[in-house]
Amino acid sequence: MKIIQGGVCAPLGFKASGVHCGIRKNKSKEDLALLVSDVLCSAAAVYTTNKVKGAPIIVTKAHLENGRAQAVICNSGNANTCNIDGVEKAERMCALTSEYTGIPAQDVIVASTGVIGQVLPIEPIEGGMKALVAGLGREGAGKAARAIMTTDTVAKEFAREDVIGGKVVRVGAMAKGSGMIHPNMATLLCFVTTDAAVSPRMLDKALHAAVEDTLNMVSIDGDTSTNDMLTVMASGLSGAEEIDKEGEEYEKFTALLTAVLTDISRAIAKDGEGATRLLECKVSGAPDIPTAKKIAKSVVCSSLLKAAISAADANWGRVLCAIGYTDAQFDIDKIDVDLSSKAGSIAVCRNGSGVPFDEDEAKKILSLDEVCVRVNCNIGKACATAWGCDLTCDYVKINADYRT
Amino acid sequence: MKIIQGGVCAPLGFKASGVHCGIRKNKSKEDLALLVSDVLCSAAAVYTTNKVKGAPIIVTKAHLENGRAQAVICNSGNANTCNIDGVEKAERMCALTSEYTGIPAQDVIVASTGVIGQVLPIEPIEGGMKALVAGLGREGAGKAARAIMTTDTVAKEFAREDVIGGKVVRVGAMAKGSGMIHPNMATLLCFVTTDAAVSPRMLDKALHAAVEDTLNMVSIDGDTSTNDMLTVMASGLSGAEEIDKEGEEYEKFTALLTAVLTDISRAIAKDGEGATRLLECKVSGAPDIPTAKKIAKSVVCSSLLKAAISAADANWGRVLCAIGYTDAQFDIDKIDVDLSSKAGSIAVCRNGSGVPFDEDEAKKILSLDEVCVRVNCNIGKACATAWGCDLTCDYVKINADYRT
Repeated sequence: MKIIQGGVCAPLGFKASGVHCGIRKNKSKEDLALLVSDVLCSAAAVYTTNKVKGAPIIVTKAHLENGRAQAVICNSGNANTCNIDGVEKAERMCALTSEYTGIPAQDVIVASTGVIGQVLPIEPIEGGMKALVAGLGREGAGKAARAIMTTDTVAKEFAREDVIGGKVVRVGAMAKGSGMIHPNMATLLCFVTTDAAVSPRMLDKALHAAVEDTLNMVSIDGDTSTNDMLTVMASGLSGAEEIDKEGEEYEKFTALLTAVLTDISRAIAKDGEGATRLLECKVSGAPDIPTAKKIAKSVVCSSLLKAAISAADANWGRVLCAIGYTDAQFDIDKIDVDLSSKAGSIAVCRNGSGVPFDEDEAKKILSLDEVCVRVNCNIGKACATAWGCDLTCDYVKINADYRT
Repeated sequence: MKIIQGGVCAPLGFKASGVHCGIRKNKSKEDLALLVSDVLCSAAAVYTTNKVKGAPIIVTKAHLENGRAQAVICNSGNANTCNIDGVEKAERMCALTSEYTGIPAQDVIVASTGVIGQVLPIEPIEGGMKALVAGLGREGAGKAARAIMTTDTVAKEFAREDVIGGKVVRVGAMAKGSGMIHPNMATLLCFVTTDAAVSPRMLDKALHAAVEDTLNMVSIDGDTSTNDMLTVMASGLSGAEEIDKEGEEYEKFTALLTAVLTDISRAIAKDGEGATRLLECKVSGAPDIPTAKKIAKSVVCSSLLKAAISAADANWGRVLCAIGYTDAQFDIDKIDVDLSSKAGSIAVCRNGSGVPFDEDEAKKILSLDEVCVRVNCNIGKACATAWGCDLTCDYVKINADYRT
């Protein structure tokens, strides 16, 4: 497996574009993205579990019922959610895409992200379509990745390749993250492309398996968004044989997809609203995987721990507290906790009780931009990893007057 | 029912005291509290559901097994939790209380609050006992209430009285709140006294009923503490007949207890760490009470909404979002939302979609120090209220370097 450049356009057959059409006031930031495939793709998706669902989710779900798609159109600056005319506007976005690209509207995936409950102005999108389509190209991946950003501070795009069934196969992805992100379907917006040939059924299976250990293990603030959506389109243009059943090729493809979504997950957590560092929690020795996952999530979700991490303060009692209110069965008196980063590792708790440690060394370890809380339950073999970030004043500032 | 002065010493038969013994460095703040009754009391308690339980909880639970108690000793500045010698130290605190007051150690309730995972120094407590006991008096309630404070900015004490069974009966309470507070047993530390005569069994029943609608409906930050404890002691010195079964007297006593715990709940929410205003959510029209409670809690727990409230920003989409990820059954398309305070009330959402409203008026309403989100599910008759607070930079600052 190899890390490569090119984001969503790294796999063969994909072109992307991003323009500023005017939904956002800030003209220096793109707000409309388009991603198209040269051929009709197998497609699969996962969506938010929130009962409030953005109108684009309703339309996309209907379009993906047949497991096929050829384009993605996505705007930022407005979520098109909780509006009377939401579905009508989302359908209009698909119709516009069809009009300008010739791709049937029912093969278009539509997504929106931004403020909830404000009517989406369609005029900027209508006005921007010509330039958007004119900009389509393999080098357009970066602009598309920027166009879907909201409060993200960096664009998130990754790609990897591997040899599957004798052919080089690529997976690329772009995502927007930042706020309103919580494990219960923390998909945010993420669009994945691949030139592997995968049947819709196996693509759906691989996607669910990969999301379970990646994006569903990310939390920024405990708020599950109304517009979360992750889609994957497989063009098949690598020339590799179609994966239509389980087996070695399916396993390798799922591993490749999981690797790219892990890259995305870490990037999203690290760029959480206001965050200054990535907070990773690695749980081992748990009795089963669900328990390991619950503990890992509970730790990265603790507001108190996250605030301590912002100051590189080794307040490990808050780790124990967060483990303690996890809704799962384990023995708190067997828990070991270590804090680690590239600067080293330090034991802070053994058998549920504190052990003396060097505060200066702990501070040094926690001062890096990626830190890890390692929890050993010492009662089994199951492991899990979750990703979050520290909680800073900037999170509050960003969200205090988000609408203006 | 009447609001009265005197806190935990308003009911007949109780004396309290608070001193600075030296667990905290800040000498201007008391850190050791004592509350004693002239007679052995009926007693009941509720505790944290966190698997990590402070040593004082283990000792108090054992002491309350017989439903009787006569004193409470409580320190702040150290939680005596996750330490090898925790139980030993908690028992020592009870033994010291016995030594200085003559009350049997097994009739003493012990509690601690502060940093987790640091060994509790017993010497300051030993040294402070003489002054603590010398200070006991009905006028000592205020000092005791201050002594149990951690990051609280105001002491929390309330009392009310009512005529039950022909006699005036009083209920008083003191509490510490502020951080690490979440609905799943948001009891923090709260000590309640009454001069009603209530059997241990009925006292326990009344307490559980009252807590369910009061302290369990408070959330500051989603973190359930390891040391939460609420105890109630009934001296019986009002002269009223003992309540030993359900009936009018039991109902009136439970209502009185609920009223005092509502006062405490609102005060704790309003004084949440870093908070500038109380955020109340009143849900009506729900299909059943558990659903109403889940929705109300979900709204006051949303970090995003709490950040918006700190800026008096009417970002009602975040209310809908929080309602939407509530784990309960209801129809999101029937939801109405209004924002209100003493400055007025404004409709922002009808049938799950936004309605036009005057932003200036909404800003005026949300700028007061107590604001309410009213949610009508429009499908049933069940109601519930939850209390929280806004999220500010000060929450982060307070918790970034809490240990130093």
